[in-house]
Amino acid sequence: MKIENGWKVLLMDHFRVADDFWSSRMELVKNKMIPYQWLALNDQLLNTVPSHCIANFRIAAGLEEGKFEGYVFQDSDVAKWLEAVGYVLSWAKDEELEKTADEAIDLIGMAQQADGYLDTYYIINGLEKRWTNLQDHHELYCAGHMIEAGIAYYKGTGKRKLLDIVIRLADCIVDTFGPEEGKLHAYPGHEIIEMALVRLYEVTENENYLSLAKYFIDERGQQPLYFAEEQKRNNNEFFWKDSLFQFQYYQAGKPVREQRHAEGHAVRAMYLYSGIASVVKETQDTELLETIKALWEDVTNTQMYITGAVGSSEYGESFTFSYDLPNDEIYGETCAAIGLVFWARRMLEMELNSSYGDVMERALYNGCISGMSKDGTRFFYVNPLEIDPVACRKDQRKKHVAVERQRWFGCACCPPNLARMIASVGNYVCTYREQEIAVHLYIGGEANLPFCGMRMRVESSLPWGDTVAIQMEGEASEFTLDLRMPGWSSTTGISINGKEEKPMVHGGYAKICRKWEDGDKVILTFDMGVKRNYADPRVKADVGKTAITRGPLVYCLEEADNGKGIGRMQLPADSAFTVEPGIVEEGSKDLVTSGRQIALSEAPLYTFRRPDKGQDTRLRLIPYYLWNNRGIGEMEVWIREGV
Amino acid sequence: MKIENGWKVLLMDHFRVADDFWSSRMELVKNKMIPYQWLALNDQLLNTVPSHCIANFRIAAGLEEGKFEGYVFQDSDVAKWLEAVGYVLSWAKDEELEKTADEAIDLIGMAQQADGYLDTYYIINGLEKRWTNLQDHHELYCAGHMIEAGIAYYKGTGKRKLLDIVIRLADCIVDTFGPEEGKLHAYPGHEIIEMALVRLYEVTENENYLSLAKYFIDERGQQPLYFAEEQKRNNNEFFWKDSLFQFQYYQAGKPVREQRHAEGHAVRAMYLYSGIASVVKETQDTELLETIKALWEDVTNTQMYITGAVGSSEYGESFTFSYDLPNDEIYGETCAAIGLVFWARRMLEMELNSSYGDVMERALYNGCISGMSKDGTRFFYVNPLEIDPVACRKDQRKKHVAVERQRWFGCACCPPNLARMIASVGNYVCTYREQEIAVHLYIGGEANLPFCGMRMRVESSLPWGDTVAIQMEGEASEFTLDLRMPGWSSTTGISINGKEEKPMVHGGYAKICRKWEDGDKVILTFDMGVKRNYADPRVKADVGKTAITRGPLVYCLEEADNGKGIGRMQLPADSAFTVEPGIVEEGSKDLVTSGRQIALSEAPLYTFRRPDKGQDTRLRLIPYYLWNNRGIGEMEVWIREGV
Repeated sequence: MKIENGWKVLLMDHFRVADDFWSSRMELVKNKMIPYQWLALNDQLLNTVPSHCIANFRIAAGLEEGKFEGYVFQDSDVAKWLEAVGYVLSWAKDEELEKTADEAIDLIGMAQQADGYLDTYYIINGLEKRWTNLQDHHELYCAGHMIEAGIAYYKGTGKRKLLDIVIRLADCIVDTFGPEEGKLHAYPGHEIIEMALVRLYEVTENENYLSLAKYFIDERGQQPLYFAEEQKRNNNEFFWKDSLFQFQYYQAGKPVREQRHAEGHAVRAMYLYSGIASVVKETQDTELLETIKALWEDVTNTQMYITGAVGSSEYGESFTFSYDLPNDEIYGETCAAIGLVFWARRMLEMELNSSYGDVMERALYNGCISGMSKDGTRFFYVNPLEIDPVACRKDQRKKHVAVERQRWFGCACCPPNLARMIASVGNYVCTYREQEIAVHLYIGGEANLPFCGMRMRVESSLPWGDTVAIQMEGEASEFTLDLRMPGWSSTTGISINGKEEKPMVHGGYAKICRKWEDGDKVILTFDMGVKRNYADPRVKADVGKTAITRGPLVYCLEEADNGKGIGRMQLPADSAFTVEPGIVEEGSKDLVTSGRQIALSEAPLYTFRRPDKGQDTRLRLIPYYLWNNRGIGEMEVWIREGV
Repeated sequence: MKIENGWKVLLMDHFRVADDFWSSRMELVKNKMIPYQWLALNDQLLNTVPSHCIANFRIAAGLEEGKFEGYVFQDSDVAKWLEAVGYVLSWAKDEELEKTADEAIDLIGMAQQADGYLDTYYIINGLEKRWTNLQDHHELYCAGHMIEAGIAYYKGTGKRKLLDIVIRLADCIVDTFGPEEGKLHAYPGHEIIEMALVRLYEVTENENYLSLAKYFIDERGQQPLYFAEEQKRNNNEFFWKDSLFQFQYYQAGKPVREQRHAEGHAVRAMYLYSGIASVVKETQDTELLETIKALWEDVTNTQMYITGAVGSSEYGESFTFSYDLPNDEIYGETCAAIGLVFWARRMLEMELNSSYGDVMERALYNGCISGMSKDGTRFFYVNPLEIDPVACRKDQRKKHVAVERQRWFGCACCPPNLARMIASVGNYVCTYREQEIAVHLYIGGEANLPFCGMRMRVESSLPWGDTVAIQMEGEASEFTLDLRMPGWSSTTGISINGKEEKPMVHGGYAKICRKWEDGDKVILTFDMGVKRNYADPRVKADVGKTAITRGPLVYCLEEADNGKGIGRMQLPADSAFTVEPGIVEEGSKDLVTSGRQIALSEAPLYTFRRPDKGQDTRLRLIPYYLWNNRGIGEMEVWIREGV
């Protein structure tokens, strides 16, 4: 197993998104979500649980009196907001927004302690208790988010103030944790700081941060178990004492290098795995590489929904076991799908393999953006692949599955996570190294290639149309263009300047190495045929069923189009699909086909009579991410296939 | 809607079971379960949580010092034991057992208070607190069980001591509860006393007991809600405050007469419905009859498993909603299936309709006795219709599904409930009224007909063979013999003295009215063909699947016979079955057929390739009640049907 060296992410300072599909969503983040969240952070929303986030910072800064309120990780909300703002400001000027953010940063600076410590929960409640409940109290989690914010804001605005704050915070953490005597031999209960520290290392070149990220990973799960000792020492509760996963809730039940199966809280897992990938890339640790590749295989080949959702159970918002993918009792948190995108891109930074890009695209276009209504004002935590609203109201097992997106949440992790994901989607499109650029996502925009004087202009009709055009501009240069051949496209045509080409495909990427001239144009033509997908037969929930995809998009049946009783629908094996203009979103495509629905009868609950094949019916499928934009109703991704 | 008057149960003092299938099970109760439970009640078992049940009575009686230990309903364990002993002594002499039971009854008498009150929890912890937590503290539940015990022991032995104890107890309850001023306008949190009081009324003809049973039903769920008021008054907790069912956990969220849908804790519901049926029968209350018939329809036609199990969810051990019948996350408590048997027979006492008998038989031969290992030493609480042991170990949602029967339980409700059910199975075979005897279950034995001088000798080869012979003996008499035509038998032949007859069938019962002579013999010949069953298509868990039955028995696939990957098995629509000698139990029958198993492949989790039809394989099905007698493994009742 080897790491391919030298890959870097083409960040948004070099890639400007201009895409029919994504630009409008980025604008939603800028114009709706960010202003809305700012009101939330300042307790200016009606009819929601107050966030108290800014108030906590004001109290911690000594500007007002009061108690800490909210979750122990409340600080992370302002961090995620600032991170999103940083991304937005990298592609849009907005002086008023920048001024607001600068003031928030000033406030954070005032709350920071002389030694760099920054967590309003303990600043307000007593610093003597800090670091006494690493298992559940999220200080390092909040720090991780703040570091991401500091970097994003610096990249987006060039302003160092928040970056300097998080450098002081990181230094405080370096002074507190590590293998040296007198330091805490500990690690966070909720991961994220690992990947944040590696990013801070990349920005500052301070190797302490990389070392500490690696230490957090290596120490995790070692015996004697830090969290167990900490519980005893500080009388901390163990919320999961009756659970099957025990300390694996935190991915801390055994040393990370021994873990081969994703367990426990899915968002934590995704963030840990992203951190592992970041550390492996920087340290070339081949043992840890083996771990992270095995975990990738486990998650994406046995525990991931077709939408890219992960986390099969509401209990602990967790993974369960291989091939356990219930569509209706799923957790499938929006944040976990986002975490899978983080992880996938980090894998791509080590190995140019389209399986990473395929998963990244799958999660992004399905399980992530399904978390948001099309107008950007309502959000899902949980992203089911099948819903019967009656069940969610009557069955405690499905109570966590909201039948419609909510305005805001008491635990507001998903909406701001979506905001930062969408605002930074340009960071996921390309990676590059010396004289080589790899295109992972076919999102339109303009790239300035860092290794030469050329620009690369991408025009994409995805996910609806079949064509992507890539035009080179500027002074001629020789380099390799790597184009991901998506798993969903059976045949992908490539032409260069109008001439069909058959470049070598390696690791799922077509590699075109040539001297590019100003005006050279590559046209990709994808197979946008409607595909029937089948799950591994060990997935009990999907046996005998098919899920429909077209391009990168998963489709679903919704009650609004197909009436009640979706569970009684069948898709005959030979039904053909037609592509029609989408009903839910302007410019989208729906799929129409003929199906059957088993009729209801007056027969008793159990009979000896085999149900007949059902009544012919016309089925309309809409893109999964667009479901629940027309009120409450049944929905299903996996459709029973008939003969 | 009308009640058919005059039906009575032919109790075991008039019906002696002699049956290949049931007699051995009754002997297991007598020789294994009852002695074993006696050790349990006396804390003489190793390696189990001590019961402390007898100890509580000794402390309450002032014979020793100590604290109350065990559940608040611990007293009911000795009551259920005594009830089972009473039944056993009605069909078997056992002086030593009777002596032991008499001593236990003496002890109970010593614990009883001067005013008749009897509950060791409050006798030990302070009588001033009695009746302050009717919602959760089971005083009336324990009383109900004790009343059942008193009646059973009186019927089995002729001894009145325990009967007199429970009469005093019932009088105490009559003095405490009722509509009169100064009495508590309340009702039990866990029902059972309703049906017990009606039985006590039948034995004593004291109408106070019937009135109170009716009062408990009528007061239940009236506003202001007693339990809510009680919580406020006594600072009682409300364990279900975050639940969807709220007070319907106790079937107390609305007046009983308004309830049309079974909700909440399934055992409580079955006991309440049995009590309602008992009250309706005695009071001819047609409004309440409508309620109970609607509830019967709801449960048996939308919320009952094919095994007769009820209770779809572990949360609250409860019903959920119509057609929600998950096979793997089921609760399906043994006690609830037993409760369904209680209820069904009470419906038969009001209306001779074979749908009640069919359900009674279904529950008895499948969902009840599946709770017990074939040697009578291990027990299930939860009776799944599908199990993957990996899931039970890895998925919190299935943690409650034990992968093998357990020796005994901390909450020991199911094993003694099974003991009393099996020991009294003779009470479920026939009902009678003036010059009419109805046979509901085809269990061998000898009936003394109370309305004439004849005996009726039943020889049954069920559930394995197809023939039942009924011979009349004694002085000739004219009466009607009603024979249930089971729903599972497509055609049932009837011959009288060798001559085929076609009697009128009414309400699913063949009615043979004639003057019976000594030696007259009726032979029933049932269709024992293997049947494929199909669930209503609204049962999502069973769509596209079939369950196999033969006679009254449900069959299943077990890993021990069929290997791993039961979920990937298919039963082609045209596969034929052969009946073979049973592997698990001497004399039983297995079913063998040809199936297919979808092969595993190296394909990724999701592919565009439709799975092939699978590899041919021989499938062996065993009777469901016999599963898990050969170690831990996969099992499935509902099998996917292929083409």
